Amino acid sequence: MIGIFDSGVGGLTIVKEAFKELPSYDIIYFADLAHSPYGTKSKSTIEKFATQITRFLLKRGAKIIIIACNTASAQAYKTLKKEFSIPVFDVITPAVEEAAKVTKNKRIGIIGTYGTIRSKAYENAFKKFNFNFQIFSKACPLFVPLVEENFINRPETKRIAKYYLRELKNKQIDTLVLGCTHYPLLKDIIQKVMGKGVTLIDSFKVIQSVVEKIKKDKELNSSLGKNNKQIYFASDSLNNFKEIAERFLGRKTKSFVVELDN
Amino acid sequence: MIGIFDSGVGGLTIVKEAFKELPSYDIIYFADLAHSPYGTKSKSTIEKFATQITRFLLKRGAKIIIIACNTASAQAYKTLKKEFSIPVFDVITPAVEEAAKVTKNKRIGIIGTYGTIRSKAYENAFKKFNFNFQIFSKACPLFVPLVEENFINRPETKRIAKYYLRELKNKQIDTLVLGCTHYPLLKDIIQKVMGKGVTLIDSFKVIQSVVEKIKKDKELNSSLGKNNKQIYFASDSLNNFKEIAERFLGRKTKSFVVELDN
Repeated sequence: MIGIFDSGVGGLTIVKEAFKELPSYDIIYFADLAHSPYGTKSKSTIEKFATQITRFLLKRGAKIIIIACNTASAQAYKTLKKEFSIPVFDVITPAVEEAAKVTKNKRIGIIGTYGTIRSKAYENAFKKFNFNFQIFSKACPLFVPLVEENFINRPETKRIAKYYLRELKNKQIDTLVLGCTHYPLLKDIIQKVMGKGVTLIDSFKVIQSVVEKIKKDKELNSSLGKNNKQIYFASDSLNNFKEIAERFLGRKTKSFVVELDN
Repeated sequence: MIGIFDSGVGGLTIVKEAFKELPSYDIIYFADLAHSPYGTKSKSTIEKFATQITRFLLKRGAKIIIIACNTASAQAYKTLKKEFSIPVFDVITPAVEEAAKVTKNKRIGIIGTYGTIRSKAYENAFKKFNFNFQIFSKACPLFVPLVEENFINRPETKRIAKYYLRELKNKQIDTLVLGCTHYPLLKDIIQKVMGKGVTLIDSFKVIQSVVEKIKKDKELNSSLGKNNKQIYFASDSLNNFKEIAERFLGRKTKSFVVELDN
């Protein structure tokens, strides 16, 4: 099984991408709703949550872990790589590689939660390249609640987007990384505010990295079930989780609420 | 000690009220930042968190518990009353008593988080009265992130307030209960949207209930320290918690991060 987790529903956008690129592969998804959102929480707390979830997914047969959450990728990727022997994928590395390919003027913007921006995980990932990229980052903490309240096409959201993005616009970036799995739902507004000249990069690229890894590693590939099974777990019940999940995924789901062991 | 808890910083508005009405009384405060916010979480999850926190506060000498959070009051008050033998105060009962006194046309509005509104805790509390109150409730989930982002005087916030409150305005209520400890920070905007004829009721009244209880119960009163001590705990670190806390309280604080036992 491919194990995928997020603090909530955002990571389902990555599950949907997996349906496209890895059809028939079995998927186990975990939404940490009891602790959601991660964006404002500390590194040590997020490391603890991510470790508990990974342990849970392994017990239930995951052979690969995808951290489908930018905050958890920023704060807990290194810890998971160290703690666990199976392949772990974060959403930051592939987005950074893509942005490095796409940018022409080498001026790149990053938007995300407070946790992601404060961690400087994107800046650090860009340092691996030998180019002198100039990185400009901005936390946009209201974007997640606006998406979750379905305020996607409201004028308030456009005004708030203009307010948050003004700084980045003034820096004349040509590439903007949407460093949060909720943000693709605001893609139209963000594109309009930033202008056509700016390329938006989202977190879906992680699935390409998984595809490449599987192609190379036959043993890993054969350990993954391909029975078109999907199973969804959450650490809390959410009245409308099933409904939201089905909206995100475009298909019927079964979901279960479990309590995490420490 | 008087034990006070909330999912985050909102309950500090009630601590400030305690400073005024119960000066010199020792206070122990707990902010459940690792699990914040409570507004979208399930009853059983909030009951678990509230029980863990109450146990923690008792161990450290609390002789009274104030649930300084509307969602936790709505979801966990009954459980805490049953589980623990010391007096437990919720913020809903005193606000409902006040609203019942104030209303003339018996049409009362309630605003709060999804958790508070869905619980129908306010409606149930109003049923104790022999009057035929008409209760109209509305969840306003964006108010908390807007306050925490310090968007208090921005035009987007006024537009969102108009959007949320339109329904209640049309119901011609004369009293509106601010069923969340963050909302008093939006009092000016809410008052402007609702009009002068509507009386706003906030959660501070709980401190009056404590004052009355202490007056009557001499034994309880003498068990409470009066050395002007305040101690703040949180289940996660928050970069700017000390700064926010000092802004809310208008005084210097010391705070500690601890992990809760199950």
